Amino acid sequence: MSQARYAIGVDMGGTNLRCGAVTTKGEILLLCRAAAHAMSAADEIAENIAYQVRRVEAMAQESGWGRAAGVGVAVPGPINLKTGVVIASPHVVNWRNYALHRRLQALLKRPVKLENDANAWALGEFWQGAARGFKDVILLTLGTGVGGGVIVAGRIIHGKAGMAGELGHITVDPNGPPCDCGARGCLEAYASASGLRQMLVSEPGALGARSERDFLDRRGDFSVRMVAAAARGGNQRALRALASAGKHLGIAIASLINIFDPELVVIGGGIAGVLSQIRAVVEKEVRSRSITARAGLAPIIRAALGDRAGVMGAARAAM
Amino acid sequence: MSQARYAIGVDMGGTNLRCGAVTTKGEILLLCRAAAHAMSAADEIAENIAYQVRRVEAMAQESGWGRAAGVGVAVPGPINLKTGVVIASPHVVNWRNYALHRRLQALLKRPVKLENDANAWALGEFWQGAARGFKDVILLTLGTGVGGGVIVAGRIIHGKAGMAGELGHITVDPNGPPCDCGARGCLEAYASASGLRQMLVSEPGALGARSERDFLDRRGDFSVRMVAAAARGGNQRALRALASAGKHLGIAIASLINIFDPELVVIGGGIAGVLSQIRAVVEKEVRSRSITARAGLAPIIRAALGDRAGVMGAARAAM
Repeated sequence: MSQARYAIGVDMGGTNLRCGAVTTKGEILLLCRAAAHAMSAADEIAENIAYQVRRVEAMAQESGWGRAAGVGVAVPGPINLKTGVVIASPHVVNWRNYALHRRLQALLKRPVKLENDANAWALGEFWQGAARGFKDVILLTLGTGVGGGVIVAGRIIHGKAGMAGELGHITVDPNGPPCDCGARGCLEAYASASGLRQMLVSEPGALGARSERDFLDRRGDFSVRMVAAAARGGNQRALRALASAGKHLGIAIASLINIFDPELVVIGGGIAGVLSQIRAVVEKEVRSRSITARAGLAPIIRAALGDRAGVMGAARAAM
Repeated sequence: MSQARYAIGVDMGGTNLRCGAVTTKGEILLLCRAAAHAMSAADEIAENIAYQVRRVEAMAQESGWGRAAGVGVAVPGPINLKTGVVIASPHVVNWRNYALHRRLQALLKRPVKLENDANAWALGEFWQGAARGFKDVILLTLGTGVGGGVIVAGRIIHGKAGMAGELGHITVDPNGPPCDCGARGCLEAYASASGLRQMLVSEPGALGARSERDFLDRRGDFSVRMVAAAARGGNQRALRALASAGKHLGIAIASLINIFDPELVVIGGGIAGVLSQIRAVVEKEVRSRSITARAGLAPIIRAALGDRAGVMGAARAAM
C-alpha cells in the first residue's frame, strides 16, 4: 500500500457538490458527486460538506490510505479568507455573511482551507492543468458567470482578504448591458452563457423566448454549444452574439495583459468550447489594445482539467 | 563616518535626468538633476547616465561613504527586463530596441538593475512613501501620461518580461477618445494631463487653442492646476473635463480592485493634486462597479514622495 499523502478537495457548484481525494502528486484517488442543496439552511449545507469529506476520507482509508493531510473547500461567491466568512454565494441562498470556516472546522475537528471557487479552479489548472510549469498566468473561466484567478511569480494572488481575481467584473464597456452584480458592461455581461443569452434575447428584432429555441439543448436549457452550432450554420444572430462576446473578451484580456504581462492566458468554461470560433476577433482586440502584446502575444489556450479543476485546486490549497 | 550602505538610483524623465544616492534605510544622501537629451544618439544618453552615476558616487565617496552597493535605472517606456532591451521610450527618440542594460554594464563595469519608470515610482512609494508598511497596493501615477505599479503580497509584479503595470492602457471605454498608444479609450486618454487637455480642446463648442488660454500656466504650458482652479471658479468646461477624468479613473480603479483586492490605492502625478475635487465621482464609480469594494472600500490616497519617488525606487531595485 502506498504511503503517499493526499488532501481532500470540495468544490461547491450550482447543482453539484464534488468531493475528491487528491495525492500530493496530483493524482485523483477518488471523486464523488453529490447533489447541492442551494435552498437548504446555511448549517445544513455545511453539514453536508463535512459528511462528504468524512465519507471520502473513510473510503480512502479503506483503500489503505491514511488520514487526509488537509481539507480544502472551494466556495462560489466572494469570501473573506481572513475571517472565513462567506459574504454571499450565488449558489447558496442562505450563505450571507456566514461563518463557514468556523462551522466546518468545528464539524471536522481539524484545519480547513477555504478558497474562492474560481481561484480554486485556477489553482487546479496551474498545478496540474493547462498552466502547469508556468509562473505568470491569467486564468478565466467563462461559464454561466465569469470567474478567474491570476498567478504572479508562481503564486495565486489573494489580495487583502482573499477577494482578488474577480475578473468577471472588469468593466469592458461602461455603457454596456446590465450585469447580475448591479453594474453595467462587466466582462460577465458578454463572455458568459448568461451574457450570451441576454444578448440573443434582447437583440432588436428577436422574438424573446420563441426565437431562443434554436439555442436550447435537448433538455430545453440554453446552450453555448447550440449557439456555436447555429453560428457555424450561418445564423446571423448567433454570429453577432459570439462576435460581441469575443470582442469584449479581447478587451478584457488586453487590459489584463497590460496589467500582468503574463506568459499565458488560459480560458475555461463553456465559452472555451467555442474559442476556435472567436479566436480571431479576440486576438485582433488584444493586439490593438495591448502595448505589451505587441512585443509578442501571450498564447491564449483552453483549460485542460474540465470539471475536476476545482476539486484539484481546493485539495492543493489545503496541502 | 557612517558605514551604512547605499545604492545609486537614476530616474530618466522627459526633461530631467535625476540621479541620487540613497541609503539602505531610505535616506537620500545626494540628489542631482541634469538635463535629459531626448534627441541625442542612443549611446550618448547611456554615456550621460554612466557619467552622472560616477559623479554621484565620487561625491558620496568624498563625504566618506564607500562604493555604491548597486545601481538602478528607471527607464520610461516598455523595457524587456529579461533581455535588458528598451523596446521604445516616449522620452528618448533613439532608444528603439536598444540594449541599454548591456551598454550601461559595460560603461560602469558592474551590475546594473533596470526598472520601468512607473514601476520604480511605485517601488519608491511602497518602500518609503504613501504605501509604506502595506502589502497589497495599487499605485497609479497620473502625469502627462499614466503609469503604475502593483504590489502583491509585498512584491512589485513584473510579469514575464518586466512589462507588467501598464495601468494607463487599461481600456475604460472601448469607444472612447484615441490614446497615444494607438488604441481607444485607455485610462490615459482621460486621467492624464494630455487626456484632460484633449478633452478640453476637442469639446464641441470649444474654440481650440484660443479657449485653452484659461488652462495655461505663466509659462504658457497646459496645467492641470489651472484647470482645477478654473473648475473651482465655476468654469463649466473645466468641471466637465475633471468629472470625466474622475469617472474614468473610477472605472479603472473599480476593475483593479476587482482584480487585486488591495489594501490601498495610491495616486500620484499632477492629477493627484486635484484628487479632492474629483474624489466623490471617483468613489461613486468604484462603489457601483466593484463587488469587492462593497465589502469595504480600500482607501484612495495621494502619493507622498513627489519627484523623488523614481530615484528612491530605482535605488531600492538595485539593493
